[in-house]
Amino acid sequence: MNGADALIQTLVANEVTACFANPGTSEMQFVAALDGVPAMRPVLCQFEGVATGAADGYGRIAGAPACTLLHLGPGYGNGVANLHNARRAFTPIVNVIGDHATYHRRYDAPLNSDIATLVAPNSIWAKSADTPDTVANLTAEAVAASYGPPGGPVSLILPADSAWLPAQGAPVIAQKPVRPAPAGAAVDAAARAIKAAKKPVVLIGGQACLAEGVREAARLQAVGVTVYTDTFIARTPRGAGSFAPRKMQYFGEMALAELEGVDLMIYAGTSMPVAFFAYPNRPSMLVPEGCETLTLVERGEDSAAGLAALADALGAPKQGPTQALALPDAAPSGKQTAYTIGASIARHMPEGAIVCDDSVTSGAGIAAAGATARPHEVLALTGGAIGIGLPLAIGAAVAAPDRKVLSLNGDGSAMYTIQALWTMARENLDVTVVIFANYTYRILNIEMMRTGAGEAGPSARKLLDLGDPNIDFVAIAKGMGLPAVACADADAFETAFAGAMAQRGPMLIEARL
Amino acid sequence: MNGADALIQTLVANEVTACFANPGTSEMQFVAALDGVPAMRPVLCQFEGVATGAADGYGRIAGAPACTLLHLGPGYGNGVANLHNARRAFTPIVNVIGDHATYHRRYDAPLNSDIATLVAPNSIWAKSADTPDTVANLTAEAVAASYGPPGGPVSLILPADSAWLPAQGAPVIAQKPVRPAPAGAAVDAAARAIKAAKKPVVLIGGQACLAEGVREAARLQAVGVTVYTDTFIARTPRGAGSFAPRKMQYFGEMALAELEGVDLMIYAGTSMPVAFFAYPNRPSMLVPEGCETLTLVERGEDSAAGLAALADALGAPKQGPTQALALPDAAPSGKQTAYTIGASIARHMPEGAIVCDDSVTSGAGIAAAGATARPHEVLALTGGAIGIGLPLAIGAAVAAPDRKVLSLNGDGSAMYTIQALWTMARENLDVTVVIFANYTYRILNIEMMRTGAGEAGPSARKLLDLGDPNIDFVAIAKGMGLPAVACADADAFETAFAGAMAQRGPMLIEARL
Repeated sequence: MNGADALIQTLVANEVTACFANPGTSEMQFVAALDGVPAMRPVLCQFEGVATGAADGYGRIAGAPACTLLHLGPGYGNGVANLHNARRAFTPIVNVIGDHATYHRRYDAPLNSDIATLVAPNSIWAKSADTPDTVANLTAEAVAASYGPPGGPVSLILPADSAWLPAQGAPVIAQKPVRPAPAGAAVDAAARAIKAAKKPVVLIGGQACLAEGVREAARLQAVGVTVYTDTFIARTPRGAGSFAPRKMQYFGEMALAELEGVDLMIYAGTSMPVAFFAYPNRPSMLVPEGCETLTLVERGEDSAAGLAALADALGAPKQGPTQALALPDAAPSGKQTAYTIGASIARHMPEGAIVCDDSVTSGAGIAAAGATARPHEVLALTGGAIGIGLPLAIGAAVAAPDRKVLSLNGDGSAMYTIQALWTMARENLDVTVVIFANYTYRILNIEMMRTGAGEAGPSARKLLDLGDPNIDFVAIAKGMGLPAVACADADAFETAFAGAMAQRGPMLIEARL
Repeated sequence: MNGADALIQTLVANEVTACFANPGTSEMQFVAALDGVPAMRPVLCQFEGVATGAADGYGRIAGAPACTLLHLGPGYGNGVANLHNARRAFTPIVNVIGDHATYHRRYDAPLNSDIATLVAPNSIWAKSADTPDTVANLTAEAVAASYGPPGGPVSLILPADSAWLPAQGAPVIAQKPVRPAPAGAAVDAAARAIKAAKKPVVLIGGQACLAEGVREAARLQAVGVTVYTDTFIARTPRGAGSFAPRKMQYFGEMALAELEGVDLMIYAGTSMPVAFFAYPNRPSMLVPEGCETLTLVERGEDSAAGLAALADALGAPKQGPTQALALPDAAPSGKQTAYTIGASIARHMPEGAIVCDDSVTSGAGIAAAGATARPHEVLALTGGAIGIGLPLAIGAAVAAPDRKVLSLNGDGSAMYTIQALWTMARENLDVTVVIFANYTYRILNIEMMRTGAGEAGPSARKLLDLGDPNIDFVAIAKGMGLPAVACADADAFETAFAGAMAQRGPMLIEARL
């Protein structure tokens, strides 16, 4: 057994069984060792940002980490943006970063770089296995660390000689950490404050937005506590049978207008809401003036337990409100908008679907119809780094091969990690990709006004518009082996989407707006 | 004038006139300010790795920095791999990284991250302009720092409020540093050592590989000093009229076999040659045992001056050997290989062409015929992070609009930054893209054996092969607005390439191997 064998065997022993990889020379021992451990599924991505985004999608759905295999500093670098999103989603991921042999580092060969510094901003744990006998233990430590709580990406650096030299490697089992229930005092304080408040709200985020947490939060709604979620949530149920909390608005002034008069804000699994960006003369904090704030459940604690305890303390009913199923009767027709697309999606999306949402300005149209659609789950863009919608869908589909996965993308978003289409084709994943093709960074046209930057002139417009030439996503998809169709109106989309739901396997729909 | 105006005006005053950009909300003031300074050319890239690679290509050809415009930590992250290459090429680049407003940072909004740490490994200078009045001065400081010598990427972090607030901004002119000539003692020592040596070589790299340095190095060759270059060179002339030094072989054992008996190695503009990767039981240092080593010119010194002084001290003739023009007479025909492609390229490539080389295992075939082709220049992959061939060509074409640019790419390499095709189409750049489509990471199949990792089984092969499905680059190119053609044999490539050279504007040729 060499170090690479020890690594993979330890991963598998700890239920890490998917590897999203883009290897290079320094990772060849790891690649070879995969043949000895068929329980580890290797998935090739032709760009590391696809691999890290896929690991995020996998981790959100599986509740357990996937690993990535990345090629030294530059390979990790390509994965940084989606690891930023994963850090903000608190998703467990074990990044394995190949490095030069320990004795070779000092020569500063062309691919050498300061990996330890590069991984620091997006790793909740990072170590280098500088001798082969440390590999198994550090791998187990890495897996355990990735769970947090609240969890996140970890970085295990694997020098080439630690991979190729003989290693002691009896698989080491990592202890999965247990989330503690919040302190009784926090529950009592929250209950007292609610009773004293005129207009209390609870803001849930992170683990509190999983099915169980949402169910308990609904009980609070039933006793007059308005439930809000963070704007961008790693994973949450939506549609019939689920409670539909309000969502914190993206634009700060709208959020504050909606929260007017709120005198108590309680946090469960999240912290103070803040504006996504700063703007001249607009507030950063999205808490109304004079509003009292309290933390019921810290991010690393057991959100559902905390919400249940608070609901009990308030004498809430055992069951809160839920959404009834209400699908649009008529097929949408005529001019295509995000709302007609949302209606078609709601009409045909099967129960249990997973929606990976990187649709930016088109998202509201989908959410509207989704609220009363068949039960499904939504994975959102937690860190603001667009380009996650396609990779996230790969990971979700690998984690849940029996569920339909929808990947919703702005055209600008999709281009960041367009190589993901090839992996969907190779792995024959059951993913339907929708591209909202509006040929512009529409959000930036809005933000341009909001930041007070003024009217866009010719130079500015060159950086906001995606046309000239318009991208043909159908051609790109076919180039990567994916069936694809473009839809110019609502009727065409309805037909194409219904067809995609009726079959298994990957396909792409370009929805022209 | 606000901070964004001050920034752009200072850049332009310092001859930074191209901006490769992928902006977001925090960069809207910069985008708006571009309209006031038409001397700055904005080039939109739909992925930041394209922007940084393009800035590298621009800097190598212009000899002056371009700027990039990147969106917080994740935007910079996407650009890391090609900035790693640029650092290894010592290319001046001014990265402008938008950040949250200074007062907003503390709220840790979703896009917040530790930018200062993230940029450190690939920045030779990094500062944040935390007040608007510092912007102009720091911009000038950034430009100056990017020149080194020996130069490299710098990172100027621009918080949104520093961009939008009023700023003092009389453009500040940066001092361009002058490279000092090497000390006379270093020249004398080298001359003495050469006279005493049996088999002396000089290894040139970096600035020594520009036209003037190569010319002076040829004079050393004329007096019996064998001239080698580093394996991967940022920029160097090739073809008729240039001296053709030997190149350090990529594989260490081959390099050492070729260097057998060498008893003196003199460095000019570079340092000790090392193996690209470590392998079990193979050397890291590529200097023969017992060989004396001396540094004639440090990387930051004036290489041509040092080489000229050494040639004078040795009484070398004023002119060394150069290559005669020798083009393949016959059009290649039949089965297509890297050598038939190289022959077609040599036959039709015009004088002054710029070859951006990310062709990995296909490169040798091109280099063979290129050595006696019409005079051209080659930009190589300096840092080993594949995915630079397409972006590099964008930058070279923007810097030298009157020269034909060739972008040579392995299929695996091309996929990393495939979004670059769209920018070539939008800017109507005179770039001919060649994709060597062998449907595998061929280099990794070779490296798998060399690392002793053994025969690839089914899992390993899944990570080495790029087929299943084969990528259709013609479809992808058309999807991004580029004319494209696929060639299955040498005859078809000859026709397609001759056609591409006879016209202006971007096109792609998929060469099936």
